[in-house]
Amino acid sequence: MFAPTYLDWNATTPLDPAVREAMLPWLDARYGNASSRHEYGRQARAAIDEARARVAAALGAHPTEVVFASGGSEANNLFIKGVAALMKPGLIAYSAIEHPCVREPARQLRRQGWTVREIAVDGQGRLDVADWRAALAERPAIVSVMLANNETGVLQDVAALAGDARAAGAWLHSDAVQALGKIAVDFRSLGVHALTVSAHKIGGPLGAGALVLDKQLELAPLIAGGGQERGLRSGTENVAAIVGFGVACELAAARREDEAQRLSVLRDELERSLLEHGATVFSAGSARLPNTVFFAVDGIDGETLVAKLDRAGFACASGSACSSANPEPSHTLLAMGVAAQTARGALRVSLGRGTTADDVARFAATFAQLTNELKNLTAVAV
Amino acid sequence: MFAPTYLDWNATTPLDPAVREAMLPWLDARYGNASSRHEYGRQARAAIDEARARVAAALGAHPTEVVFASGGSEANNLFIKGVAALMKPGLIAYSAIEHPCVREPARQLRRQGWTVREIAVDGQGRLDVADWRAALAERPAIVSVMLANNETGVLQDVAALAGDARAAGAWLHSDAVQALGKIAVDFRSLGVHALTVSAHKIGGPLGAGALVLDKQLELAPLIAGGGQERGLRSGTENVAAIVGFGVACELAAARREDEAQRLSVLRDELERSLLEHGATVFSAGSARLPNTVFFAVDGIDGETLVAKLDRAGFACASGSACSSANPEPSHTLLAMGVAAQTARGALRVSLGRGTTADDVARFAATFAQLTNELKNLTAVAV
Repeated sequence: MFAPTYLDWNATTPLDPAVREAMLPWLDARYGNASSRHEYGRQARAAIDEARARVAAALGAHPTEVVFASGGSEANNLFIKGVAALMKPGLIAYSAIEHPCVREPARQLRRQGWTVREIAVDGQGRLDVADWRAALAERPAIVSVMLANNETGVLQDVAALAGDARAAGAWLHSDAVQALGKIAVDFRSLGVHALTVSAHKIGGPLGAGALVLDKQLELAPLIAGGGQERGLRSGTENVAAIVGFGVACELAAARREDEAQRLSVLRDELERSLLEHGATVFSAGSARLPNTVFFAVDGIDGETLVAKLDRAGFACASGSACSSANPEPSHTLLAMGVAAQTARGALRVSLGRGTTADDVARFAATFAQLTNELKNLTAVAV
Repeated sequence: MFAPTYLDWNATTPLDPAVREAMLPWLDARYGNASSRHEYGRQARAAIDEARARVAAALGAHPTEVVFASGGSEANNLFIKGVAALMKPGLIAYSAIEHPCVREPARQLRRQGWTVREIAVDGQGRLDVADWRAALAERPAIVSVMLANNETGVLQDVAALAGDARAAGAWLHSDAVQALGKIAVDFRSLGVHALTVSAHKIGGPLGAGALVLDKQLELAPLIAGGGQERGLRSGTENVAAIVGFGVACELAAARREDEAQRLSVLRDELERSLLEHGATVFSAGSARLPNTVFFAVDGIDGETLVAKLDRAGFACASGSACSSANPEPSHTLLAMGVAAQTARGALRVSLGRGTTADDVARFAATFAQLTNELKNLTAVAV
């Protein structure tokens, strides 16, 4: 099988072999419905309890604060719609660079009388302090600010924001899907009311994510029914995926510091090379994830370059994967004030556990070659 | 490993070996995000397209009518809340024996001004014709009637109901989660506007289900975000689960007639034996699934018997698995007018592809022995 070099770890990750190993029995002889009272059901229930404890431990939360869902998108929707459903319509504020699965459910709330407000970011993709204060002064009921951006990798100081939000009487949620496994993510020390995480971004399977939730929050379920997950998320639990999520969380926590160190060295090397070949690295002046480089080359179309890199054996992204069916330029870059023309040239390389120094060197060489070709083509065309 | 005889196929089913085989590559080297434009992403997208075609073919639907979700509970919630969100609040009617994942989202709509109405069933668990007509006369906007009940196995003549519902101007949804693989399920000939199915009830994996949806219906997504599934269900697709679902649908369709014939013979044998030992079989006079027996023995508690059967090596259910954390008697039986005391004694045995004549004979013998013991105990206690 043709196996290109995978440089799109922010989109999804391969299953860690240890995670896969832990999942397989639950796709085989251990097939019980966790709500069943018999032996098969009890085995499944025990496995979910153990996974919940692992996820909680990795996140500095209590197991009873972990609500399993089918993934990060569901967990974000669950928080936003679930909290709003039990409140009088008010204001919901979120950063202008949130993932669509935060922005869209917030916008859906307008039908129920809610007002939405985006909070501006600066040219580096960091929350604009003045606009943050202005937003809180408008007394939002719900606020959502992501811990790390999926495209630029920019980190927000969510712990500091949490203090402000609490003082302003808002429920603060943070989408930590991209942060988990790459930087420290501790529910208690972040001080947020709710946190979203996802398994498939950290070597775990598709089909599992969680909302970590302060128990003082009341939440209407998005999926109501059999009453699983303390009534907050009904539906037969995906045991194999939840088991895999637990193991992936444990591994991610154990490896995080070493991996972050290793990847940041590779990332820095890659950036040096990109800059040499005329690239602009977005948010280079901001605290960022150790594995993410979001960049553009003037006059070169990102889509075209991604397609050429793909044929040359490198898998990377031209925008966030979830919206790449959409030809619109990155909303993150537009929010940072980057011109639409430049934003259309953007390319994201995200490194991960399988990435080697050789992968990065080969990518850099191919990138240099392809951009030269494209530049010459452009020159000829003019 | 201790492997009791599994007689709880309506709760969940083991993965069919062919399904597992088809899934494994997607838990290994084929790990792309289906929204990614590179080789890994394109492979995942092609696999989802193929699975969608298989599911559609098995259900007599067009691939574009299949909306993948994380399971049956999500699909039911998606239909009910999704349709209601885009309408003026009105009446939603559903049969009194619907699964909680239909009843609960409907009840949640009351917060938005909707009225809910249950449609009565008769003592056999069939929709009460007079009440069905009365319900339609109240001009419901949305109606939901399951194709087969999860506990009794009772079938409703949904094709006939569809004609009535259409004439009354209602959107008709049918939960076909328990019907699929056991009786013919054809979207077009049923004539409903929407249909829910689930993978893990037919030898497919947990984590995949679908809402089959007439495209004239507008639906607000339950999970909004990246715009997957034509914008109706965002979130990175669970490729392995969806691939498994496709294969499971194909196998279920190919095997259905033979399996139904085989299982109904075993079921009839089992019922004869249960009746001999003083059991009452619920809905025995109604058209039912070929694999399901829901019964009770006067003076014996269902929970106690399930626990004893479990220790004796038989896995069966005392109520619907999804609500068995709940000690309330079966709402299906209560709706049928069964006394709470009798309903508490209820036991469900559901057969499946792995069930043999020997399994049934051994179960019947053990059941006879245990009920005799329990009756003697009761006699002594009196």
